[in-house]
Amino acid sequence: MEQNKLQNVALNQIHIQDEFWNKYVNLVDDVIIPFQWELINDNVEGAEKSYCIRNFRIASGQIEGEHQGMVFQDTDVAKWLEAVAYSLNKNPNPELEKTADDAIDLIVGAQCEDGYLNTYYTITGEKRWSDLFEGHELYTAGHMMEAAVAYYEATGKDKLLKSMCRFADYIYEVFGKGEGQIPGYPGHPEIELALVKMYHATKEKKYLELANYFVRTRGEQPCYFLGEKWNHGGQYMFPEFKDFGMDYTLADKPILQQTEAQGHAVRAVYLYSAMADLAGEYQDEEMLKACDTLWKNITEKKMYITGSIGSSYYGECFTGNYDLPNNTNYSETCATIGLAMFSNRMFQITKNGKYMDTVETALYNTLLSGTALDGKHFFYVNPLEVVPEIAENNTSMRHIKTVRQQWFGVACCPPNIARTLESLGNYMYAVDDTTIYSNLFIGSDITADIQGKEVTVSLKADYPRNGRLEYTISGAEDSAFTLAVRKPGYSENIRVAVNGEKAEYTEKGGYIYLNRTWKDGDTVTAELDVEFRFVYCNPNVPYNVGKVALLKGPWVYCLEEVDNGKHLSSVVVDPEQTTLTEEYDENLMNGTLCVKFGGKRIDYTDVDGKLYVSARPKYKKDIFRAIPYCCWNNRGKGEMLVWMRTMDVMK
Amino acid sequence: MEQNKLQNVALNQIHIQDEFWNKYVNLVDDVIIPFQWELINDNVEGAEKSYCIRNFRIASGQIEGEHQGMVFQDTDVAKWLEAVAYSLNKNPNPELEKTADDAIDLIVGAQCEDGYLNTYYTITGEKRWSDLFEGHELYTAGHMMEAAVAYYEATGKDKLLKSMCRFADYIYEVFGKGEGQIPGYPGHPEIELALVKMYHATKEKKYLELANYFVRTRGEQPCYFLGEKWNHGGQYMFPEFKDFGMDYTLADKPILQQTEAQGHAVRAVYLYSAMADLAGEYQDEEMLKACDTLWKNITEKKMYITGSIGSSYYGECFTGNYDLPNNTNYSETCATIGLAMFSNRMFQITKNGKYMDTVETALYNTLLSGTALDGKHFFYVNPLEVVPEIAENNTSMRHIKTVRQQWFGVACCPPNIARTLESLGNYMYAVDDTTIYSNLFIGSDITADIQGKEVTVSLKADYPRNGRLEYTISGAEDSAFTLAVRKPGYSENIRVAVNGEKAEYTEKGGYIYLNRTWKDGDTVTAELDVEFRFVYCNPNVPYNVGKVALLKGPWVYCLEEVDNGKHLSSVVVDPEQTTLTEEYDENLMNGTLCVKFGGKRIDYTDVDGKLYVSARPKYKKDIFRAIPYCCWNNRGKGEMLVWMRTMDVMK
Repeated sequence: MEQNKLQNVALNQIHIQDEFWNKYVNLVDDVIIPFQWELINDNVEGAEKSYCIRNFRIASGQIEGEHQGMVFQDTDVAKWLEAVAYSLNKNPNPELEKTADDAIDLIVGAQCEDGYLNTYYTITGEKRWSDLFEGHELYTAGHMMEAAVAYYEATGKDKLLKSMCRFADYIYEVFGKGEGQIPGYPGHPEIELALVKMYHATKEKKYLELANYFVRTRGEQPCYFLGEKWNHGGQYMFPEFKDFGMDYTLADKPILQQTEAQGHAVRAVYLYSAMADLAGEYQDEEMLKACDTLWKNITEKKMYITGSIGSSYYGECFTGNYDLPNNTNYSETCATIGLAMFSNRMFQITKNGKYMDTVETALYNTLLSGTALDGKHFFYVNPLEVVPEIAENNTSMRHIKTVRQQWFGVACCPPNIARTLESLGNYMYAVDDTTIYSNLFIGSDITADIQGKEVTVSLKADYPRNGRLEYTISGAEDSAFTLAVRKPGYSENIRVAVNGEKAEYTEKGGYIYLNRTWKDGDTVTAELDVEFRFVYCNPNVPYNVGKVALLKGPWVYCLEEVDNGKHLSSVVVDPEQTTLTEEYDENLMNGTLCVKFGGKRIDYTDVDGKLYVSARPKYKKDIFRAIPYCCWNNRGKGEMLVWMRTMDVMK
Repeated sequence: MEQNKLQNVALNQIHIQDEFWNKYVNLVDDVIIPFQWELINDNVEGAEKSYCIRNFRIASGQIEGEHQGMVFQDTDVAKWLEAVAYSLNKNPNPELEKTADDAIDLIVGAQCEDGYLNTYYTITGEKRWSDLFEGHELYTAGHMMEAAVAYYEATGKDKLLKSMCRFADYIYEVFGKGEGQIPGYPGHPEIELALVKMYHATKEKKYLELANYFVRTRGEQPCYFLGEKWNHGGQYMFPEFKDFGMDYTLADKPILQQTEAQGHAVRAVYLYSAMADLAGEYQDEEMLKACDTLWKNITEKKMYITGSIGSSYYGECFTGNYDLPNNTNYSETCATIGLAMFSNRMFQITKNGKYMDTVETALYNTLLSGTALDGKHFFYVNPLEVVPEIAENNTSMRHIKTVRQQWFGVACCPPNIARTLESLGNYMYAVDDTTIYSNLFIGSDITADIQGKEVTVSLKADYPRNGRLEYTISGAEDSAFTLAVRKPGYSENIRVAVNGEKAEYTEKGGYIYLNRTWKDGDTVTAELDVEFRFVYCNPNVPYNVGKVALLKGPWVYCLEEVDNGKHLSSVVVDPEQTTLTEEYDENLMNGTLCVKFGGKRIDYTDVDGKLYVSARPKYKKDIFRAIPYCCWNNRGKGEMLVWMRTMDVMK
């Protein structure tokens, strides 16, 4: 493990200037944040009620009423606040800050004297901590803590942070293995990684200890949750939970013994993120190994080519190895975000670029497929293959939506997308004492303190449309530091020049390292192989045998009906024969790089009405157009396909 | 429509002597009937309790207690009785008959004075007919009526039949559109077809009228069930029903306007069977057309090649056209039986062999795949493709079992298989005034009254292993009648000889008609094309594009892991290049016709650990062995595959 741990660069020191990403990031500032505020205040006509703010008013005694919404409804305002904090960190906005301050006043006003905060349990009077398995109190606390830390870092205001310290102090007293303490842990992990953030913000070591307790106690046998369920007479708050064992909530065995990604995908990657945090904080090689084993299991056996995870709808969970169905999967947007969080943490403690390759895949494909460019429609579920006539008429595919859905009253994904896009800088760069790591090639200027000097690095890029990255160093006067540029796993080569001349560099763990004494105005160019490429799937995945996917850099491409007509399942492409022609379409999604190629497809005019026939279907030649997967479903409902048939049998 | 409607031949006039089918039919007599009797008496150690007989004891006042089991638990003894009746019809068995008589005494003893019979409503005191949507009272009544008719026909004993007449008379008074009557109909169709049987057994026209009322009232708007749910405050007995609309229970529009097979597959085909009955009884061309439209929709767009139906687990229901996933389907054994019932009725009123082709497909594949040869393990769900490591670890595939399951306390399929196998004769032959129709080529002797004379037709066959059918006519002294032999749709030719010489025949609607004055000892041979054949699926079915299935006569073949190793999804076969070699395996399932053929498969020794790679997988040549689908999973757990990859792209 690297002793010299990587740190994020402060978000206000990163200025994104990127044609592709600007439109998404601006969307959060301009649309998503204001829209969600109206939504959690129940001001959006036609939308399902949230009750979130109303619940806080009731809990704080401002109004009378019953709690409404889910048991974890408080997290809606928490995630909104976290996204607001990142936004304010980058772009001061007094009006928005005033709204956020008012929200914080309301939240803190609902806190109990002993520090406890949860509108559901406060209003209903149900017994605190009596249902850790399903009650989501610790999960909700975790999101509020993440918001508190982000808001403090953005504004310097510590009202919510202090409030969350009181809450964390109280939780620290309540939970543990001492006499009178509850020896349990959260059903839905989240507070663990939040407590690590609290520790960083406050330097209060006991928050780290509490995170460590929650993670390490998890799964000890006999399982805490089973005893709890016994007390509840076997009644479940969420009825489907009766169908799941303790593996579902990652509590069937101690976490160090868990070697397969399992259970609810979001819970899993939130837990693994905390495990990675702890591995770094405690310099715990055993924990790091456990994390890497789980990470490998995901990325080598359970991850879609689009960076999504969770193959099964029922329980929103992981399934067995190599089980990656393309049209019935869950692939929740939140789970992809969690995978990016986990992978980013693994990178920060190992400095290995393979983790950032996964972050890049997740963000460039599934994160973005989660949102429409109006900022008001979202995919929670991200299939790789859709035939609307089938998905809409199959009761077992009711989770598959053929168009993005409106924001629901109860919604995890949209605010999660918002906070991720607002904190994109945390994935783009990282620094240690001597080195600036450039991870995601998003056009930007950053300023970082490196060995006591303030250095600015500007990156000009049109990536992955173009593989050329142009860095300019400024503010450096004979500064000796290292610029590390990630060499993505897909790129066989990297061509590096400093000030236009071929440069010496070292290569290690997926990064090239340029260690120099830099002068103001020095330029670095790095060229990556971003030619379109066809990719085969490991044939242990039965669904993709005899198929290929088309990628450019991190972008996965797909076929849509609007470009290619119906019956995409019949399309056949031969990677060794076909010529690919790039085609930039200015009118598609404000500018999108498409690609055209030749292939074959069944001639459906020749198909008769029988279901089973002896005649081989007739094929015809055709030209197809693919677009980036992240852009799909922005031109109405229709078929979509990532994995295309190919003739891969040796000749 | 044919005026001269076909009739069944009495079961005691049909003697099956067939190497393939005997083992299944004997299984019902020897194992399934005795085993189920013990099961419904709660005498099987380790099995889930049925409570069925116990409920009747309570309802009849013999013992005290609460009702236990499902609301339709009474049907278990009804289906058992029906199977017993068919068995007794063929093979007298005084001991079994005594047991059945005692069961009937018990059942009739639980009947109310007004004729009502249902242990759930009688014991609980819940209001009769208050929940037609879910309460299953009419469904349960229907199964008891079918049992009563079968028992009367087998034994001449009318105690249960008279009891059911009292019940039917009572229902006739309660339901209808008159003043004080309930204008509803059953949530789960079944009583409709049972009432037609009651009408035939008793000649009581009002039973037919009642069936007609139930069928024709169904789906009138506003929907009866919606008003009923309103009365129940929207509470559901089966919680998942809240996710379904009135189309699910085939009540969203009048049945004559229903043109797509929809909703719960078993409900649908039971209803359609009754519709076909009514079309025949009333010589109703409009109803016949509605039936044929639905039948075509099923067989041209919604039926697996194995004759199974119901593509979705959730709700056990039909989905959209061409939606036939191979590894997540429901394909309930009971639904296949219902499809055979519906198709047989359509044949009987039209004399068109296409309907019997579907019966044959259903019975030779999915009916038999439903049962293990021990008579104690069953598939309710019949996938066409299984990878155990995937199915067992995917929560959305929990309905897919990788080995046949024990008989459950609540079980629809096993007794349905039993009654179908015991009444196989009803599908094998049919007669009208002038013609004996030979539908299924199962070795047998039958005696039929034809134009006042008793004629015996013996069929010797080893079908479909062999396409040669040998009929011998006896007992005929210069009898003029027609022997009609079905020419299956898959068989392009049929070679017919009478007494060894080429014979004249006419061909119509999938039958060849031999109209002669027969002499005692006349023989007819008919040879069908039962060579192995590769079949393509309509490419509107996305799941089967680029694939072929291998069939012999009605038998669908499949690959199993035990013969072919793992990773069957990678197997590629070229129908135009490969040679098929038959191989009879005496040790497999007491003798099974296997077939070997060459093809290619991916060389998995060459596969590395990465999930997504640029290298095309390597293929190697191999020899594969396929077995009939109906025999799968009799040699332990393993992969199974029906649709194999092929290189169908034109060269």
